[in-house]
Amino acid sequence: MDNGDIPENANEHCPGPQSESAGKSDACEGCPNQQICATAPKGPDPDLVAIAERMATVKHKILVLSGKGGVGKSTFSAQLAFALAAMDFQVGLLDIDICGPSIPKMLGLERQDIHQSNLGWSPVYVESNLGVMSIGFMLPNPDDAVIWRGPRKNGLIKQFLKDVYWGELDFLVVDAPPGTSDEHISIVQCLDATGVDGAIIVTTPQQVSLIDVRKEVNFCKKVGVKVLGVVENMSGLCQPLMDFKFMKLTDNGEQKDVTEWILGYMREKAPEMLNLMACSEVFDSSGGGALKMCNEMGVPFLGRVPLDPQLCKAAEEGRSCFADKDCVVSAPALKKIIEKLIEANGLSMAASNGV
Amino acid sequence: MDNGDIPENANEHCPGPQSESAGKSDACEGCPNQQICATAPKGPDPDLVAIAERMATVKHKILVLSGKGGVGKSTFSAQLAFALAAMDFQVGLLDIDICGPSIPKMLGLERQDIHQSNLGWSPVYVESNLGVMSIGFMLPNPDDAVIWRGPRKNGLIKQFLKDVYWGELDFLVVDAPPGTSDEHISIVQCLDATGVDGAIIVTTPQQVSLIDVRKEVNFCKKVGVKVLGVVENMSGLCQPLMDFKFMKLTDNGEQKDVTEWILGYMREKAPEMLNLMACSEVFDSSGGGALKMCNEMGVPFLGRVPLDPQLCKAAEEGRSCFADKDCVVSAPALKKIIEKLIEANGLSMAASNGV
Repeated sequence: MDNGDIPENANEHCPGPQSESAGKSDACEGCPNQQICATAPKGPDPDLVAIAERMATVKHKILVLSGKGGVGKSTFSAQLAFALAAMDFQVGLLDIDICGPSIPKMLGLERQDIHQSNLGWSPVYVESNLGVMSIGFMLPNPDDAVIWRGPRKNGLIKQFLKDVYWGELDFLVVDAPPGTSDEHISIVQCLDATGVDGAIIVTTPQQVSLIDVRKEVNFCKKVGVKVLGVVENMSGLCQPLMDFKFMKLTDNGEQKDVTEWILGYMREKAPEMLNLMACSEVFDSSGGGALKMCNEMGVPFLGRVPLDPQLCKAAEEGRSCFADKDCVVSAPALKKIIEKLIEANGLSMAASNGV
Repeated sequence: MDNGDIPENANEHCPGPQSESAGKSDACEGCPNQQICATAPKGPDPDLVAIAERMATVKHKILVLSGKGGVGKSTFSAQLAFALAAMDFQVGLLDIDICGPSIPKMLGLERQDIHQSNLGWSPVYVESNLGVMSIGFMLPNPDDAVIWRGPRKNGLIKQFLKDVYWGELDFLVVDAPPGTSDEHISIVQCLDATGVDGAIIVTTPQQVSLIDVRKEVNFCKKVGVKVLGVVENMSGLCQPLMDFKFMKLTDNGEQKDVTEWILGYMREKAPEMLNLMACSEVFDSSGGGALKMCNEMGVPFLGRVPLDPQLCKAAEEGRSCFADKDCVVSAPALKKIIEKLIEANGLSMAASNGV
């Protein structure tokens, strides 16, 4: 895909330090890196061989990407992993968001440590068939900032792929940070030879989020990763009317909480309202949302997941929403999406108990 | 702050390629980079001198950071810039989110081009006192992915600081991507000698977002950037009850839109409800939210901005929420925060018309 990191101080038309002509091409004349480029070892990265060996026991590899951050990518990755594990698949979840790892919290695995055996680093297990790996497990203090530039992040991603002993896996779900930079180039380069099933892209209905999704789709096309589909998350808020708080604007512009009073008033005067769901679009989707974008770009649309406070809560507490009777709005939506994903891509080849 | 990018293949205890002992320390023995490190030029980066010259006409520099993406950082940056400009300050807004630039859209400047003069690159102007610079203006196709590793991103950030002709500015607001990686290290390194007033950190009330904010606060402490304060965004959804859609769950689990009917029913049976605001927490803030985190970490809390569909709309359409009579919930909240920020940091030194 590329010929290695091009240094900031390289000449124009640098062929790339990994290229066969590195340090020897006309463009290299006078470049401060010419000597090291000309003498550095070239050819296939020995790490890639080690990664291919590790990945030989993994049947399917799925990347979860997003253009913008905060669209619920890690929440989706976590719930996808929970769902696949509930279907009796052997599942691994790898968090390559080095600077902002959310996966440990979302799987209920805070303050867990990684153990090392003679087979490699052992993932942390939520269940016997759901193992998780994240830099979050390696930080002595969860508040520590990981102030790393690209090369160091790439080094850790390689190590995750090379040194983690997953055993036999049906699915490896890789949760990437937002964007199209170091982590993304690295994971695709590292997994390229081992075969990646494709990428799921998570977005919100906002235009500003969809702009970045288009970039993400083009990134996938450029690097040759199939787009398995796009999930529109936070697709409106929907919750029982009884779960809202009600405020009245007073004459001086302050808000006064009148929830108690209104609940009584409704019971007495308008009982038909008690069982309603109230829905708000939240994010403006007048531009047509993800569905329109998918049609335009020729990639599959997997479905919408509404903004559900109960799903947010399950994610914060590291629980599967599928086992949570309060996730009435989001769990069925997620279930449909995952079933569609599995069916459309022929991913189902083990016994399934249903989500 | 650091001694340059440590290469992935460096020895343990690498002193850093920019260190005086690079290539010469005991730890360098046998490192593949030893030779280039020993011979590469050291000392102050000549670019930093050029940056200091450019920044000499900028009175205040404010970074807008977030731990996680999608918390509304760019929306806040855009509205902060609008507000400062409305107060008659000379304002520049620099977008250093190279892989996901949202600022052009949020200022209503899509499809604008940057012009070059003998003074440097000219920002794109929203108003005569509000100039904007972003990689978004440089992409021939807005859907193009910018698949760049760190060094190339750092190069562009340097160029933005060195080559953009802002003229006399009261405020330069820098909108950073989420996290604590290349872009953040670069901007802090580049601006270090020119004096940065500090950073505003934007978050949501969720635990998973606050975990990353703690990292961001620690990043600021580590690199010596003052935290001007934390803004809690998407702090619950609040909107007029009349703006919701109402759904009824039918016996077979489908949702039926009964909005029309319910509006009539309310008018007749429960008119007191017509003027209410309905609020939902959306994101679980039972952990105490940003206020508690600020108290624990000893940084100022600037205030809360509720999730307001009207603000989302203004942002999508590139408008200031302060000039929008529909932003009844978010505009007063944002105004308070910006006033607090200016007052607490003694930033006001030009005539002000009020926001």
